[in-house]
Amino acid sequence: MAGETIITVVGNLTADPELRYTQNGKAVANFTIASTPRTFDRQANEWKDGDALFLRSSVWGEFAEHVSGSLTKGSRVIVQGRLRQRSYQDREGNQRTSIELEVDEIGPSLRYATAAVTRATSGRTGGQAADNPSWAPQGAQQPQADTWTQPGGTYDDETPF
Amino acid sequence: MAGETIITVVGNLTADPELRYTQNGKAVANFTIASTPRTFDRQANEWKDGDALFLRSSVWGEFAEHVSGSLTKGSRVIVQGRLRQRSYQDREGNQRTSIELEVDEIGPSLRYATAAVTRATSGRTGGQAADNPSWAPQGAQQPQADTWTQPGGTYDDETPF
Amino acid sequence: MAGETIITVVGNLTADPELRYTQNGKAVANFTIASTPRTFDRQANEWKDGDALFLRSSVWGEFAEHVSGSLTKGSRVIVQGRLRQRSYQDREGNQRTSIELEVDEIGPSLRYATAAVTRATSGRTGGQAADNPSWAPQGAQQPQADTWTQPGGTYDDETPF
Amino acid sequence: MAGETIITVVGNLTADPELRYTQNGKAVANFTIASTPRTFDRQANEWKDGDALFLRSSVWGEFAEHVSGSLTKGSRVIVQGRLRQRSYQDREGNQRTSIELEVDEIGPSLRYATAAVTRATSGRTGGQAADNPSWAPQGAQQPQADTWTQPGGTYDDETPF
Repeated sequence: MAGETIITVVGNLTADPELRYTQNGKAVANFTIASTPRTFDRQANEWKDGDALFLRSSVWGEFAEHVSGSLTKGSRVIVQGRLRQRSYQDREGNQRTSIELEVDEIGPSLRYATAAVTRATSGRTGGQAADNPSWAPQGAQQPQADTWTQPGGTYDDETPF
Repeated sequence: MAGETIITVVGNLTADPELRYTQNGKAVANFTIASTPRTFDRQANEWKDGDALFLRSSVWGEFAEHVSGSLTKGSRVIVQGRLRQRSYQDREGNQRTSIELEVDEIGPSLRYATAAVTRATSGRTGGQAADNPSWAPQGAQQPQADTWTQPGGTYDDETPF
Repeated sequence: MAGETIITVVGNLTADPELRYTQNGKAVANFTIASTPRTFDRQANEWKDGDALFLRSSVWGEFAEHVSGSLTKGSRVIVQGRLRQRSYQDREGNQRTSIELEVDEIGPSLRYATAAVTRATSGRTGGQAADNPSWAPQGAQQPQADTWTQPGGTYDDETPF
Repeated sequence: MAGETIITVVGNLTADPELRYTQNGKAVANFTIASTPRTFDRQANEWKDGDALFLRSSVWGEFAEHVSGSLTKGSRVIVQGRLRQRSYQDREGNQRTSIELEVDEIGPSLRYATAAVTRATSGRTGGQAADNPSWAPQGAQQPQADTWTQPGGTYDDETPF
């Protein structure tokens, strides 16, 4: 895929993720993220909540099971994904469109929380390719830790931070 | 702050975060994220690793302690922050510049892992403001879960997914 | 504003921008951007168009007049803005929501086109603040060219590209 | 390419783009973007410039010629591209790294300017593929205007904006 509209959202889950399985046994988790901006009201000298953005999201395969097993209603998350638009008919038969997020990466925000992370046993080897639906970003699997080397190690030596 | 260059990076920590405290007792955690793209080699019919991007990152306050207590070498993370450039003198006295990431949000990726999340007890109430250095995005604290309401609940009713 | 969902979209205008004026004489331009991703079909060994994303967009003040005077149906653009959600009642009285883009920056893409650029005479001095609606990013006005200096000019000297 | 770090920058060109040609006759344009954030100083009750971010950028092929022919020192632009890191030896023989931007899309910002856009005659047909270096996003060519259709035209009918 090229030319997709990629977006990062920070917000809270409005409910526990709903985990389902397709007829082929593939897992899919759906949830809604509420992202609330804040405006500084100079007269009141305080921050006020703006209108929340609610974004319906979906995630597939073992990744969906990880999400479903790790996040709950109210979890603050950071998410990256691709905006998708669908057409559908409503009850009155009108054609409508909705915008959703296909999740590529999601994690619980550590801003107000800690997390005990456990690497999935099967994730990188077994059915990774099979888990991804056809639209999945091919090659999204990144190398394991330890596979890269820093360029000469000099990054640490020379950069004073 | 307005007009900053905001960036989202997905990658792996090259080492455990280094947690330190300033003279005023403020925590700061530093770490490097390695992000490795992949190219599809059509002749070999397989994906190959590209050159990694190494990005030095910092995070402040209780947030730094959460990061230090939750992430380790090799952790796959999703991070959002602001690019910063610094000038410094190297050993030979030459003026140099480096680009770093001031982290606004970070979480362990759930793509190949699960996480047990614990909300920090003090995070949202006590010294949040005091924890943020002067450059911190004011109002970055988002509302707790439960404070928003979906518009009429009709979102669920009408949208067929 | 803090915590807003910022997005960058590349696409084509589906029609000429519609320029209108509020009762207070403020200009606003509305238009829809169609962004079409592409998938590589390995069996057919060719790229195929995916489903387009249509995003309704608005821009305010003199900026709106610049957009209206510069872009037309089919123009390929690069846009950065903030996602906004609105609630409204449809004809049957159902509560509905739509997602729109509040444009912060837009320009004609130079990938397949050239552009003759003319700086607006009044843009930076006169009613800039007055042109911005209340939600506008305060301080979005960046300094004119010539006001910054490179750090010591050493950037050019040391970096071999 | 998958898993690259994509970034959007708004800023001003520090100098005219430098257009060169490789031995194979391929065009490349290099330039530096200065992006200056602003902080609101509550005590002074005014906005102040923060430290600028300087990002060295490159663009290839006919696209480079379009950039070179359209932008000049001081032009305010909106750019999307991929962060790249290079290693090199400085004069003293030390290994160093720099971060640059490979431009995917760039346009003159219309916030304080207007633009007269001319579609390139050769851009979409002839040597487009040949113009792209190996790292270029395959399929980056988006469809011409007029090739998409809105879903049933109902988007306009139902959405009250």
